[in-house]
Amino acid sequence: MNVLVIDVGGSSVKMLATGADDSRKFDSGPDLTPAELVRQVGELTADWKYSRITLGIPALIGPDGPEAEPGNLGDGWVGYDYEKAFGKPTRVVNDAAMQALGAYDGGRMLFLGLGTGLGSALVTDQVVVPLELGSLPFSREETMAERVGKDGLHLHGEDEWQHSVQMILKRLQAAFEADYIVLGGGNAKLVEPLPEHVRRGGNEDAFAGGFRLWEERVIPHDLPPAAAWRVVR
Amino acid sequence: MNVLVIDVGGSSVKMLATGADDSRKFDSGPDLTPAELVRQVGELTADWKYSRITLGIPALIGPDGPEAEPGNLGDGWVGYDYEKAFGKPTRVVNDAAMQALGAYDGGRMLFLGLGTGLGSALVTDQVVVPLELGSLPFSREETMAERVGKDGLHLHGEDEWQHSVQMILKRLQAAFEADYIVLGGGNAKLVEPLPEHVRRGGNEDAFAGGFRLWEERVIPHDLPPAAAWRVVR
Repeated sequence: MNVLVIDVGGSSVKMLATGADDSRKFDSGPDLTPAELVRQVGELTADWKYSRITLGIPALIGPDGPEAEPGNLGDGWVGYDYEKAFGKPTRVVNDAAMQALGAYDGGRMLFLGLGTGLGSALVTDQVVVPLELGSLPFSREETMAERVGKDGLHLHGEDEWQHSVQMILKRLQAAFEADYIVLGGGNAKLVEPLPEHVRRGGNEDAFAGGFRLWEERVIPHDLPPAAAWRVVR
Repeated sequence: MNVLVIDVGGSSVKMLATGADDSRKFDSGPDLTPAELVRQVGELTADWKYSRITLGIPALIGPDGPEAEPGNLGDGWVGYDYEKAFGKPTRVVNDAAMQALGAYDGGRMLFLGLGTGLGSALVTDQVVVPLELGSLPFSREETMAERVGKDGLHLHGEDEWQHSVQMILKRLQAAFEADYIVLGGGNAKLVEPLPEHVRRGGNEDAFAGGFRLWEERVIPHDLPPAAAWRVVR
């Protein structure tokens, strides 16, 4: 089965298909609509063969797709029929959840994306839980996203940012009883030293997660409520 | 199937079996060991008929039982063979997870236990994730558990505590994208007014969760790693 993975970010959209040598990308931004996404993906992947699509979007995703508009993109993402527009079976997933799934190798893992904001997802016992931990307080004045997102880095400078990130990593590891934390996002490379049980993810994680969603057995997102309970570690 | 639910807390141990009219309890505390628990439960439930047990313990629980000693009890909880000691099939579960499971009625729910510390668990798409959110920062000086636990209430007084709880509820609802928050624990009754999307749990929630673990279909805790992935909302 050949899968096309599309990773929609605030500054670029990246694509990779099964068997392709290199990923491709085009610019994203506050004007990007779903229809424009579908058009550009179609143009840039015309020579790739695939029968399934995974689409990672920086938004809260429910059983029927995005439940809120992504913060840094154009409008129209909620209620759009992605499968119809692409003409292929399409799984829509939160972008941090997709990247977390690609980075996961057992135990309880917390994924944090250090970029424009603070992306987050928890993976444990093969359950992926997208989160919005950027909304947590860092102090009485600032949220974690405000403190260690792009604006916080510029406002406070790299030394103070470094100190704040280290503090946040320690607290979140305890709060989520995480066996390890994986750092993604453009600013993960700035974190130095890496605390124990913290590692940097790779650029390929998002693609690996997107492939995994089709290639390994996944309980569908729209699992009926009558299905089994699960208490995870 | 008759189930005995045992809810181990820091100040008391409560029990209820299928078909029993009222719950029973005995004192808990820093001297309570698992062997002493089994002895007292046996004495106090001798006239109850049950073939299955759910045991809620305030500790991190893995596939083989507790992975850390509960903070406010005696020693020996890690590595103890509960099933052998009770002589009946026994499911050991985190106490906040058990109570959360009993309070759950759909969507994404965050459970917070306002007691000695700050208990917590997330339930979404029938997946229960025990957490330790008390370790999150409230400010630069205090964690959330320090701020709104029993000691924080005494230290800061009820007005300040009230204000802090309201702030924490708002932040956690956003961070966990929770459709609603359920408050348990002895101090839940002090929260006034209840913010929108926040409700108080009932005393019966812990028992209801314990029954649910045997009476509805539950994927076993020691689910093999080869089982399916699941991306929850």
